[in-house]
Amino acid sequence: MSISPYEISIPTFQRGFTVLTKLLDKAEAFAEEKKIKTDVLVNARLSPDMLSLAGQIQRLSDTAKGAASRLTGTDAPSFPDDETTLADLRTRIAKTVSYLATVPESGFEGAAERTVVIKSRGQDVTYTGKDYLLTFALPNFYFHLTTAYAILRHNGVPVGKLDFLGRT
Amino acid sequence: MSISPYEISIPTFQRGFTVLTKLLDKAEAFAEEKKIKTDVLVNARLSPDMLSLAGQIQRLSDTAKGAASRLTGTDAPSFPDDETTLADLRTRIAKTVSYLATVPESGFEGAAERTVVIKSRGQDVTYTGKDYLLTFALPNFYFHLTTAYAILRHNGVPVGKLDFLGRT
Repeated sequence: MSISPYEISIPTFQRGFTVLTKLLDKAEAFAEEKKIKTDVLVNARLSPDMLSLAGQIQRLSDTAKGAASRLTGTDAPSFPDDETTLADLRTRIAKTVSYLATVPESGFEGAAERTVVIKSRGQDVTYTGKDYLLTFALPNFYFHLTTAYAILRHNGVPVGKLDFLGRT
Repeated sequence: MSISPYEISIPTFQRGFTVLTKLLDKAEAFAEEKKIKTDVLVNARLSPDMLSLAGQIQRLSDTAKGAASRLTGTDAPSFPDDETTLADLRTRIAKTVSYLATVPESGFEGAAERTVVIKSRGQDVTYTGKDYLLTFALPNFYFHLTTAYAILRHNGVPVGKLDFLGRT
C-alpha cells in the first residue's frame, strides 16, 4: 500500500503544531521561572540574519497552509505576519490549525500529479504535486519547526528530542 | 496516485546527504578563509546538552539507514560513531549513501503495513511502517539535517535556505 499526499501532509502539519504548542508551553513556563519576558524568546534568533522565533512560526504556518492550498487547488487564508507576542503566535497557530481542519481529504484526489508553481526569489519554480510535497513543503515545514525548537533550546528552555517527536 | 514508502524515504535521504555535503563544502571554505580549524565547526553545538555537528551527522546517518533497514526488514551496516574530523564525517556520509544505493525499491513492498519496533529510552515502541516513516524517521531525519545547518549558520558559515532546499 502506498501513502496518500493527504496523509503525508495534513496530519504531519497538525502533529507539528501540537508539538510547537507544547514547546511554547515550556518556553512560557521557563520565562516565568527565570522572570524574563516571553518577548525575549519570541525575538530570539540563532544568527542575526535568520528569522526570529516569531518568523519561524509565521513561515511554518505559511508552509502548511501553502501546501494544503496548492495540493488541493483551493485558496488558503492569508495572515499578515503581524504577530509580536507569544499570545499572538498562539493565535496564528490556532488559525492555521483551524484552516487545516477544513481541508477535506477528498480534495487531495490527484494531488501527486497536480502542477504546482511557486514563486521563489522572483522566479517561477514548477513541480509535480509529489515533488513539491516531498522536496519543498515537508523539508520546509520541518526546517522551521526544528529551528523554532533550536532557538528555544539554545536559549535554555528545557525541551528535548521526545518533545520534538511529540512523544511527551 | 499515492506515493510509495520508497519514494518518501530513500530519495529524501539521498537528497539530504547531497545537501549536507554542500553545506560541509561551504563550512570548509569558510574555515579556510577565516583561518580556523574545521574541528571547531565539527565540535560546535547550539546548546551544551545538544549533539555537536559530528553527532548530528552520525544520527542523520543512523536515521536514514535505520529507516531503510526497518522498512525493508533487512540489515543495515553498523557504524561505530568514531568520526572526529570533517574528513571522517565525509567518509561516514559516503558509506551511508553507498548503503542506501544498495536498498532496492522492491524491498519496500508492504513497507507501510510492516510492524516496526524501535527501542526508545529503554522501551519498545511499536509502529506500522507508515507511522514509523511519517512520525519518526522523517521528522528525525530533518531534525538532524536542520540542526547541522543551524550549527553552521550560527557559527557564521554563509549557508542559506536555498542550500537547505538543495536548490543551489
